[in-house]
Amino acid sequence: MDRIPILKLGHALLVTIQVDMHDRLAMALEEDLTQRIVQAGAKGVLIDISALEVVDSFIGRTLANIASVSRMLDADTVVVGMRPAVAITLVELGLSLPGVRTALNAERGMALIDRSVADVDGDAAAGATDVHDSE
Amino acid sequence: MDRIPILKLGHALLVTIQVDMHDRLAMALEEDLTQRIVQAGAKGVLIDISALEVVDSFIGRTLANIASVSRMLDADTVVVGMRPAVAITLVELGLSLPGVRTALNAERGMALIDRSVADVDGDAAAGATDVHDSE
Repeated sequence: MDRIPILKLGHALLVTIQVDMHDRLAMALEEDLTQRIVQAGAKGVLIDISALEVVDSFIGRTLANIASVSRMLDADTVVVGMRPAVAITLVELGLSLPGVRTALNAERGMALIDRSVADVDGDAAAGATDVHDSE
Repeated sequence: MDRIPILKLGHALLVTIQVDMHDRLAMALEEDLTQRIVQAGAKGVLIDISALEVVDSFIGRTLANIASVSRMLDADTVVVGMRPAVAITLVELGLSLPGVRTALNAERGMALIDRSVADVDGDAAAGATDVHDSE
């Protein structure tokens, strides 16, 4: 496989990482994600790592990179499904995943993204004039 | 990897198939899915095969099997992201995937499941008495 599939669901893009990411795959994922964020106007990126038993510093850096680039494009990154052992290893490696939010599972991660979209929409609606006056 | 991760999202379970499924992996997926359907009370199973360039008769049969078992547990199976070449191959192989619904992408597949849940809920609400009278 040379590409990790990216699924659009509502405001979010969902990626399930199932295989060990080598350099090229990680770079392809970053590239694809940035393109899809712009294309789809996505407000969040949900990355499921429940299949990963080990997260090394390379994957940690990849996740942090994705989060940084997504933030530039105004999309939140939420990592979900992290195993307890992985969390322990990340802390021991000194990788705090800056800019990455986490949630216990995909459902909660999606709720997090939906909520931040709703907050923004709420603010926008409060400040904007009603555009539905034609109805 | 010995397990394909299953994500719960709303009423649906989402599976992204990214690797070539050998016998054991396919059997593990079937088992895991049935358990999760019951555990989560899921009403639908969404299987994304956008990463697959080839679907042979084994994978075709696995998908049909999953659909049959899910149906027993009252969950719809929707296969999404099928590539045009894969669709052609399946027809040439004579695999019509009985019991499997398809949708162009994950978003439409999810909408399909949500709609069938809403239909059932609507029917149930029409026939049921109001249980919210305590409010």
